[in-house]
Amino acid sequence: MTGTWREEGEAKRQSTLKLIPSKWRLEDPFPPATELRDVTGDYIRQFLTAREIEITERDAVDIVSRTTTGTWTALEVTEAFCHRAALAHQLVRCLHEIFFDAAIEDAKRQDEYFAKHKAPIGPLHGLPVSLKDQFHIKGVETTMGYVGWVNTFEGRPNDPRSKTEESELVRELRSLGAILYCKTSVPSTLMSGETVNNIIGYTWNPKNRLLSSGGSSGGEGALIALRGSPGGFGTDIGGSVRIPAAFNGLYGLRPSAGRIPYQGAANSMDGQGTILSVIGPLAPTARSLTLLFKAVLQQQPWLHDPLAFELPWRDEIVENTKALIAKSQTDPSTLSFGLMKYDGVYPIHPPIARGLDIVEKTLQRLGCRVIEWKPPAHSKAVELARVIYEMDGGLDFKYQFGLSGESQAAQVIVPENGTELKASEIAALNVAKREYQKEYIDYWSSTAELTGTGRPVDAFFCPAAPHAAVIPTQYKYVGYSAFVNLLDYTSISLPVNFADKKIDVRPADCQSDDTGNIQWDYDAETYDGAPVGIQLVGRRFSEEKILTLAEYLGGEIARYGN
Amino acid sequence: MTGTWREEGEAKRQSTLKLIPSKWRLEDPFPPATELRDVTGDYIRQFLTAREIEITERDAVDIVSRTTTGTWTALEVTEAFCHRAALAHQLVRCLHEIFFDAAIEDAKRQDEYFAKHKAPIGPLHGLPVSLKDQFHIKGVETTMGYVGWVNTFEGRPNDPRSKTEESELVRELRSLGAILYCKTSVPSTLMSGETVNNIIGYTWNPKNRLLSSGGSSGGEGALIALRGSPGGFGTDIGGSVRIPAAFNGLYGLRPSAGRIPYQGAANSMDGQGTILSVIGPLAPTARSLTLLFKAVLQQQPWLHDPLAFELPWRDEIVENTKALIAKSQTDPSTLSFGLMKYDGVYPIHPPIARGLDIVEKTLQRLGCRVIEWKPPAHSKAVELARVIYEMDGGLDFKYQFGLSGESQAAQVIVPENGTELKASEIAALNVAKREYQKEYIDYWSSTAELTGTGRPVDAFFCPAAPHAAVIPTQYKYVGYSAFVNLLDYTSISLPVNFADKKIDVRPADCQSDDTGNIQWDYDAETYDGAPVGIQLVGRRFSEEKILTLAEYLGGEIARYGN
Repeated sequence: MTGTWREEGEAKRQSTLKLIPSKWRLEDPFPPATELRDVTGDYIRQFLTAREIEITERDAVDIVSRTTTGTWTALEVTEAFCHRAALAHQLVRCLHEIFFDAAIEDAKRQDEYFAKHKAPIGPLHGLPVSLKDQFHIKGVETTMGYVGWVNTFEGRPNDPRSKTEESELVRELRSLGAILYCKTSVPSTLMSGETVNNIIGYTWNPKNRLLSSGGSSGGEGALIALRGSPGGFGTDIGGSVRIPAAFNGLYGLRPSAGRIPYQGAANSMDGQGTILSVIGPLAPTARSLTLLFKAVLQQQPWLHDPLAFELPWRDEIVENTKALIAKSQTDPSTLSFGLMKYDGVYPIHPPIARGLDIVEKTLQRLGCRVIEWKPPAHSKAVELARVIYEMDGGLDFKYQFGLSGESQAAQVIVPENGTELKASEIAALNVAKREYQKEYIDYWSSTAELTGTGRPVDAFFCPAAPHAAVIPTQYKYVGYSAFVNLLDYTSISLPVNFADKKIDVRPADCQSDDTGNIQWDYDAETYDGAPVGIQLVGRRFSEEKILTLAEYLGGEIARYGN
Repeated sequence: MTGTWREEGEAKRQSTLKLIPSKWRLEDPFPPATELRDVTGDYIRQFLTAREIEITERDAVDIVSRTTTGTWTALEVTEAFCHRAALAHQLVRCLHEIFFDAAIEDAKRQDEYFAKHKAPIGPLHGLPVSLKDQFHIKGVETTMGYVGWVNTFEGRPNDPRSKTEESELVRELRSLGAILYCKTSVPSTLMSGETVNNIIGYTWNPKNRLLSSGGSSGGEGALIALRGSPGGFGTDIGGSVRIPAAFNGLYGLRPSAGRIPYQGAANSMDGQGTILSVIGPLAPTARSLTLLFKAVLQQQPWLHDPLAFELPWRDEIVENTKALIAKSQTDPSTLSFGLMKYDGVYPIHPPIARGLDIVEKTLQRLGCRVIEWKPPAHSKAVELARVIYEMDGGLDFKYQFGLSGESQAAQVIVPENGTELKASEIAALNVAKREYQKEYIDYWSSTAELTGTGRPVDAFFCPAAPHAAVIPTQYKYVGYSAFVNLLDYTSISLPVNFADKKIDVRPADCQSDDTGNIQWDYDAETYDGAPVGIQLVGRRFSEEKILTLAEYLGGEIARYGN
């Protein structure tokens, strides 16, 4: 190491910026966030050609329908997304690694392949896919936001695996025909609902640059919100896919552990086995998540990742769910949902309360039964998750920060100096977790008595976070997302509404700051325009069902919202 | 607690013995083991009626074909097995709990149900099923071999759950129509390849009462070998189902974790999450294992056990495997197997070497391709497993033994006083385990280059233990079974041969005690007659395939052996 960690971080940031071709550089300074909050839509479009806009504003399903049939070339699609990703990074700082040249070479090879074989390489032929900076890609560095990881392999200098290894998911995406072109920003440690590190600084929310893009897959959220990517993969140990999805008006899936292969990806606290980090896709549409998720399963990850399960995509569950949806349109005793507006621990902001109302009204309009979700105390789940996240007493993070001497951001939810647990304490935690899971499973089953459908609820809705896309350093409580990780349930964050300073105001008759479950002490002015996502939670390994429901209900919510 | 732990243990043993009706008591003393080794077959039959023999010597599939159709009543089947179990216990000390009265009442209710509905309660209607003494059953104690657990719930005095709780598997077996009537012996701690504790003493091998019945599901092994049960469930964290199966001429399945529900069962080192103990069936025939395993899955355990996977029985895998078997009979490039005769760590005894030769010749006769199995070093797996088993430094066992002050048997493989690992050390272990699993999965896949079938091996064979049913205190090495637990692979122990002092002798030209991979320093005279089981190992979650292969190959091996 030469120089200080600040200089090292800045040097890395500059070296990434330099990989943006000069033709795609924006002139500094842009209007400050105080003058121009929202850089999505028309703002970013001004730098793009009509053709680039046409390509980048289609969703992944539309794109592959063109790239796998030769209607669009991989090259033009790749170039369009590289350009837009370059713009996005300059606007909100969402990338850690840029490798557009390699992507363009890959795209050319794919076009040659298609010309020769008159067939695509795979179902994702020519589709650019972004990846959180935990995945190793040949020729590209992985820093995971740590200055101490620059020029190393996961912090180890002179390790031959540096820039030579590929994570299993990367190998599978290539086999499927996806084009890899950038890696997105993360908070160092990954344990934060915001994205901040000593390399790129802070990843801002493109809809409101006063706010966070979420975390820890915040770079994915920001990049996709700006349509610099049609979809990508993040990871989630406490909400890190769902939070940036919610904060950026996107869909984000947290599958149960073992469906998407984690093999060969960098991680924090690797080997912590009580709550596993899982990989999940983010995209602007639910059907894009399905495309990505299903494609990965076609690669039979269980033959390559010892922790992946042999559970192929189950079309029959999709068909059964679609049949339920169809039937529900004439028979109101077909589909039922739980709705939890408040977890009993942390009051929510008015825009979230309104988002939940929109969900509730949509469900009622569709003839779905809605019951109040009254599960085993979430306070218990949240406390267990906290102890689990802090199991090693912060040893891993302290070590990684120590590599460069850099500082730990205030947003990291795990303290730098804690107490390391012992085997018997971890065993007791595992038992407590299992007992809580058992209580929850039994509660879920017991709702068959209440739904009127003869079955337990099909899924339930709850906040993904207590607030819309958050004001920096104001993410105080991850309990609305972390309980899902403790349970290992399938969950999707879906876009519902936007904070609106005109609507989401304290009513005249409201006296105190916090009234009941609603936290009125929020800054309506700053939050104005922030996306609100709501969470749809299913049982363990219910990805096929939840993706199908999310596509249906998300569409209906969007229709109601308009 | 009153009295010493020896008195407490003996009192518990006597109270169990007293539950045997006087009409079924054997007169002491029996011939000693030195005079009469084998108490199976004609010896035990002398105490039974022809009808009882007819019933108890059928396998579970035959029995349910009669009990579910009204050909046999649940009552006569239950009484026959209760009688034979009572005899078995008196001969080899294989039971911890006897509740024949409750079983007979259950059987009567089942017969009434059948008379009324002309239909069985479920696929196991009227089938007696034995359970290892880790499962809680209403009205019955669970001691798991600990004197300190007598009159408690898992060591906790005055706990309302004592004799009132039922484990999830128990609930499911009842729903399926199984009759529960006894719980079988275990070594206290469960961490032993032999079965010994301070309550019932030592569980002897019915085929050779100088030898062990194996462990830790040794009571199951001994009871089923004597046909005191048509099948039962044990648990396996290092070989505890497969070892007693191998030592008793039975089939025993160790499924991958998460298929059979462990919810609500007592366990050692509960919450140790790196190598999970799993539940598996033991029975005299492979098809009985399939019956029991498949029936449990029909109960959808994942709706009741948070650690169970939603993976129903897959008939299509059975059909595919049968098609491969059928095709292999004309096309020798259809099925292929690995064969590992020696793990590079611990030499095997001559009867095991002969068993492996029998397997090899059978596979060759059937036209299956056989390749030498040369996996990533098993020494690494065995060392990892050892560290994992000792993770809490013996804290749990020390506590449980301390409840009564009783002594720890020499056979327990975990030391009473070790060092408790910390979170970061356990995380490193989890990583090392995953990396070993990854090496193994890649090795397995690489065999596609060698098999000549165009596919990797379908499964591989190896010893289940280095020796036949073992001489007490001589079980020194569990590596042949424990590596499977580290990998979480599906494995079956299947009966192959018996140690024979006339055949399994040191060749005249053999000079040293240990020659290559064969350990000649074995006691041919004492081992004479000991059953030898060999292990068939499949990939993770391959129960449907491995059960189908075991039924086919086990049958062929038996035919060759004759």
